[in-house]
Amino acid sequence: MDVSFIIPISSFAGLLTAVFLYYSVKKQNPGNEKMREISDAIRDGAMAFLKSEYKVLVVFVVVVAALLAIVSQIPGSNMHWGLSVAFVVGAIFSAVSGNIGMRMATMANARTAEGSKKHLSKGLSIAFSSGAVMGMCVVGLGILGILVLYYLFHSLIGADRVVTTNILFGFGFGASSIALFARVGGGIYTKSADIGADLVGKVEEDIPEDDPRNPAVIADQVGDNVGDVAGMGADLFESYVDSIIATMALAAIASGTWVATEGISHDHALMIPLLVASMGIFASIIGSLVVLLGKGRNVYGALRNSLFISTILTAVFSGITIWYILGRFEPFYSMLAGLLAGVVIGLSTEFFTSEKQKPAQSIAKASQTGPATVIIQGLVTGMMSTVIPILSVVAAMLVAYFFSGFYGVALSAVGMLSILGVSLATDCYGPVADNAAGISEMAGLGSEVRERTEQLDAVGNTTAAMGKGFAIGSAAVTSLALIFTYILTANGLLLAAGKSTLELTLQSPKLVSGLFIGAMLPFVFTALTLGAVGKAAYAMVEEVRYQFKKFDL
Amino acid sequence: MDVSFIIPISSFAGLLTAVFLYYSVKKQNPGNEKMREISDAIRDGAMAFLKSEYKVLVVFVVVVAALLAIVSQIPGSNMHWGLSVAFVVGAIFSAVSGNIGMRMATMANARTAEGSKKHLSKGLSIAFSSGAVMGMCVVGLGILGILVLYYLFHSLIGADRVVTTNILFGFGFGASSIALFARVGGGIYTKSADIGADLVGKVEEDIPEDDPRNPAVIADQVGDNVGDVAGMGADLFESYVDSIIATMALAAIASGTWVATEGISHDHALMIPLLVASMGIFASIIGSLVVLLGKGRNVYGALRNSLFISTILTAVFSGITIWYILGRFEPFYSMLAGLLAGVVIGLSTEFFTSEKQKPAQSIAKASQTGPATVIIQGLVTGMMSTVIPILSVVAAMLVAYFFSGFYGVALSAVGMLSILGVSLATDCYGPVADNAAGISEMAGLGSEVRERTEQLDAVGNTTAAMGKGFAIGSAAVTSLALIFTYILTANGLLLAAGKSTLELTLQSPKLVSGLFIGAMLPFVFTALTLGAVGKAAYAMVEEVRYQFKKFDL
Repeated sequence: MDVSFIIPISSFAGLLTAVFLYYSVKKQNPGNEKMREISDAIRDGAMAFLKSEYKVLVVFVVVVAALLAIVSQIPGSNMHWGLSVAFVVGAIFSAVSGNIGMRMATMANARTAEGSKKHLSKGLSIAFSSGAVMGMCVVGLGILGILVLYYLFHSLIGADRVVTTNILFGFGFGASSIALFARVGGGIYTKSADIGADLVGKVEEDIPEDDPRNPAVIADQVGDNVGDVAGMGADLFESYVDSIIATMALAAIASGTWVATEGISHDHALMIPLLVASMGIFASIIGSLVVLLGKGRNVYGALRNSLFISTILTAVFSGITIWYILGRFEPFYSMLAGLLAGVVIGLSTEFFTSEKQKPAQSIAKASQTGPATVIIQGLVTGMMSTVIPILSVVAAMLVAYFFSGFYGVALSAVGMLSILGVSLATDCYGPVADNAAGISEMAGLGSEVRERTEQLDAVGNTTAAMGKGFAIGSAAVTSLALIFTYILTANGLLLAAGKSTLELTLQSPKLVSGLFIGAMLPFVFTALTLGAVGKAAYAMVEEVRYQFKKFDL
Repeated sequence: MDVSFIIPISSFAGLLTAVFLYYSVKKQNPGNEKMREISDAIRDGAMAFLKSEYKVLVVFVVVVAALLAIVSQIPGSNMHWGLSVAFVVGAIFSAVSGNIGMRMATMANARTAEGSKKHLSKGLSIAFSSGAVMGMCVVGLGILGILVLYYLFHSLIGADRVVTTNILFGFGFGASSIALFARVGGGIYTKSADIGADLVGKVEEDIPEDDPRNPAVIADQVGDNVGDVAGMGADLFESYVDSIIATMALAAIASGTWVATEGISHDHALMIPLLVASMGIFASIIGSLVVLLGKGRNVYGALRNSLFISTILTAVFSGITIWYILGRFEPFYSMLAGLLAGVVIGLSTEFFTSEKQKPAQSIAKASQTGPATVIIQGLVTGMMSTVIPILSVVAAMLVAYFFSGFYGVALSAVGMLSILGVSLATDCYGPVADNAAGISEMAGLGSEVRERTEQLDAVGNTTAAMGKGFAIGSAAVTSLALIFTYILTANGLLLAAGKSTLELTLQSPKLVSGLFIGAMLPFVFTALTLGAVGKAAYAMVEEVRYQFKKFDL
């Protein structure tokens, strides 16, 4: 039986869940007038940010799409005009999922604070639901985009498998462009606002966090939404679709891959990454119920359990599906390696960021000898935290390659990202909880509510950090999949044209030059973004000082 | 005419210059009783540190030497027992040059302060002379060690060229072991003492830098010597000899290198790196005279001119020598690429660290909005400063490879390090000037002397930073030379044994794993050393607070 019908069903299931959760959050009580006022201010700020961002983005997307279309018309470019179409679709889908997620988050913050009046689990449920809207949108739209484009170009226009998967890379590239702007622009905004608010508020004026007298507080709350919701969503949308597309491309290549040498049907191999992603969506929906239906007081426990349950179910469902289609397990082991590596990265991030564990406590202890030793200890902890994620990625890559070659490496990225629906939910829950804590402070909801929302916020800080670790880890595995796909595709084209293949050995000074420059780039990008944060924070501090003086706050 | 007799002459010329400068510093007035007392305390502290360091080092060197000797007896190990001998010699030579440099520096500090009473240029001359003792010892002993070991194993014992150069790597490995301990151990000590002294002194007790009431001040002064003199000397000794040995090894390989394919005499190719180093020693001696005989008030100008003159003379001498021996210029272009890259790295470091330039000023400006923005701007500047050195190294590598293959890449490292005699002098001048400034404060030599020594110290901070940039850049090029030598040697042995050569392409997941883990290691090492600094600084702060309380300072 052809089981490919499951793929569109999973996409619609994800999107329907998002719609359902959206309305279930919307019908909640948005709180008193003061709370609505603050929430509206945050939403206005967030939308104003997105509007300026889109102005730049539209120009960028139109120019790149035009360039892609022109280049595809040059004879011998090996590019289909569809790449340009796919690029625009990818950009739109990525922007739409970020936009929906942010509208949801800015609607849910006051409702989370209001819900926390009743019970902690009520607040948790609202904040998590709003995160899940983002998560389900990303996975639902991701699968939908790939399916529609594949159907359009392969079945309707008649491009062959290899050409079609190459067109699909345009979809990933479009998503990637949005992610770069949303993540970097949003990240700079959120950190500048955060630093600006803290510098003047906590350090100079000695007033508490989220004090309504501090004019940078709303900017800080806006930042949480544009950086950690819209930015994170666009970032993971890109990794998600790229991992699937890279696996499909490796499945389509005629020779040199594990799929070809093992004599597996190309159509089956093409379907597997999509089916694994589908299983992940179903598992994520079930996993979300753990949080939504839970009544417990252990916030972090509920979120973690939902991740664990989704992971186990994804593994079981995918194992059955792969066995049903291929009658063998190797691609399953590859996929499982990535899935488990993602879990290990998450747990390692939890260990390094939780206030209950040694690393965060060692930073607190270092404060006894002043700010200098705090910074040293912070850097030590941050740098040390790279070890487990890197080793996890390396282990996943080696295991995945052992079982099914480069196809397996790409599939391990799909495995890692398969539970994105629920992991993005726990991640985007963080900024909503943070906003809710801010609103309950500013609206003066009393110490009990404030305490509950702060409890939600503390867990949110850890889950948001876990989301970042997961985003970086999955980006690393996805990049590997993309690089391997590029090498195989380029070598195939070079051989077909009677040329020699790429020289990619350590004995080539050109390659070593690339490695040197590549190792330098993170520092350059960090310097540029950090410099932008410094400049923007400086401007923010000046403005806040001015307002404090002018309005005599 | 065989010109190889120049090599031992240059070694002795370097060592004789060191002896001459040593006595010329020694005969200077060591100042009043108070100054001598402080200087003696610094020397005692430095020697106590070295003594504890040597206790660990001796065990390490004996164990590794024994392991090398044992492994060399295993049939098929392709290792000569001489490697173990060369290892011990390298360790001893490296330790001796560090030790001499430090004795000199701790003797010169009070004399520099006393000399500054007369005139700024007198102080400069003493401090620079003491640095030059270190520089000349390193280059003189480096060349001497290589020559003696080569003569012993090739001419007396009769090992062939390839085996002899492989034995020489033991010399570099021995030096490397000392460098690791001296650089890391010394670096941790110096930074902990610096932070400890500043934290309690400047921050808590609000007393000026180098105030004699602060018990950590002597420790800080000791740190400058053990870290920036002994550690830096050992570090650069290792890079210096390894660059020469790697070039010699590539010259000795029978096939596959530029030397073999161009049909150049192996003996000539073996001699060239040593001759380039010799030319560098003569040029460094001449360059040093610019500082020693100068009467100007521009401290930094004098140091920079001596570097420029040494660079130009090394280039001219080496060009003539290489043309005389080979009748062609390609290896000269390779060597020149490295030499110029070293100069560019130095100038770039100057730009990023000088108080007269924008980067340092931007950090000062950021202090207007508090410590957080200072740290951000500091990180931005530091990270941005990686660009020019990396691009210089890459350019040098590509140019050097273009002209004479891997042999050229190794020779470019020799070129970069050829002026080490004078560049190490300007570098080790820094800590001596720092100590002199401290002594004139503690001994109460009055504002004029204090100002002069601070002027020397300010320049010293920049030249010490330049030395670090140079050390890192040359280590990168030397590592490249070592890696290429390893690949060619290993492939030669594998082919001779009828096996396939190393698989070092980006398509190998094992290689990619290595790259991932390699990219992680700097963070792990930084975390470990930074963590050690944090711990030691914490202990230092506790001790200083205790002493402040106990002696009611």
